Amino acid sequence: MSEGAIEHLIQLLARLPGLGPRSARRAALHLVKRRESQMVPLARALAEAAEAIRTCSTCGNIDTRDPCAICADPRRDATLVCVVEDVADLWALERTASFRGRYHVLGGVLSALDGVGPEDLNIPALLARARDDGLAEVIMATSATVDGQTTAHYIAERLHDAGVKVTGLAHGVPVGGELDYLDEGTLQAALKDRRPV
Amino acid sequence: MSEGAIEHLIQLLARLPGLGPRSARRAALHLVKRRESQMVPLARALAEAAEAIRTCSTCGNIDTRDPCAICADPRRDATLVCVVEDVADLWALERTASFRGRYHVLGGVLSALDGVGPEDLNIPALLARARDDGLAEVIMATSATVDGQTTAHYIAERLHDAGVKVTGLAHGVPVGGELDYLDEGTLQAALKDRRPV
Repeated sequence: MSEGAIEHLIQLLARLPGLGPRSARRAALHLVKRRESQMVPLARALAEAAEAIRTCSTCGNIDTRDPCAICADPRRDATLVCVVEDVADLWALERTASFRGRYHVLGGVLSALDGVGPEDLNIPALLARARDDGLAEVIMATSATVDGQTTAHYIAERLHDAGVKVTGLAHGVPVGGELDYLDEGTLQAALKDRRPV
Repeated sequence: MSEGAIEHLIQLLARLPGLGPRSARRAALHLVKRRESQMVPLARALAEAAEAIRTCSTCGNIDTRDPCAICADPRRDATLVCVVEDVADLWALERTASFRGRYHVLGGVLSALDGVGPEDLNIPALLARARDDGLAEVIMATSATVDGQTTAHYIAERLHDAGVKVTGLAHGVPVGGELDYLDEGTLQAALKDRRPV
């Protein structure tokens, strides 16, 4: 049968999130059948990205340069910083094309259960930015989970001490969402923050 | 934001079966965070597989050598050949570890709708094997779909002409399957082929 090379490839593909052993086999076969059009380009893209990608020393974003394209963009407001847990959250906000400030990527959330303390996250760098860069406003965009909100409150307190204005994302009904399927907490928040139409 | 390198990688990952744009982004980020342990090894495994993998000129299987390990294995019965549509089906049968013959991979099924004729599949090579290699039995293991069965019948007729015994996989109740969820055709076949207990 398929010797080591294919088995090894399948094992590596199966470690990707969203692919199990079965779909990894399908993906491997898909690639083998499209050697020139997909397999070789993917191998090259992975090698190039592994070589080129670095973490922005200012904000923690990943990019092919440091500082990243967002931190280096003079058109983006350097006094407005949005704090996110992960690069995936930064990408999600960028896709809205509606935020013209900069970011700070924590790299996780505080978690007593998992033993994650402030020193394990990118928090000292954020406090340094608040102190040195004259931030006008920090938007906390961590998850609306217990750990996410604990992290937001911890950071907010530190930033208040430094005299920085701290805000958070609005809660409410998702656009396109049906009330019937919403949890009580969200509905309560949406009612409380109701707006004139 | 992430410049070309990451976007390009995400686009290529999104073309894999089982990964959409969203899971491709997750997979890319997963890899970037595990550069040395997963990203570089995957790049290398892809490049090596793309370089090493070839199609067996005897049976159509993929392997790092030609003839493939199955065709080259003298312990496997060379007079018993199982005909499958795709390499994935060959892998599925090999996982049962219960077949000691060899294979023939068609590379698809006959399909009037998609304009796939006998000359588009690996059928001439199978007829040549039947003629030249003294096959004792050919097991048709194409899908139990209309096109799969049409293909099986077409091949079976040609093999009968060459004096080769042709068999097909048994139909019946899947192991662990509940009768309530089975279609009538399968139940009918299972009744007809009932066995003494």
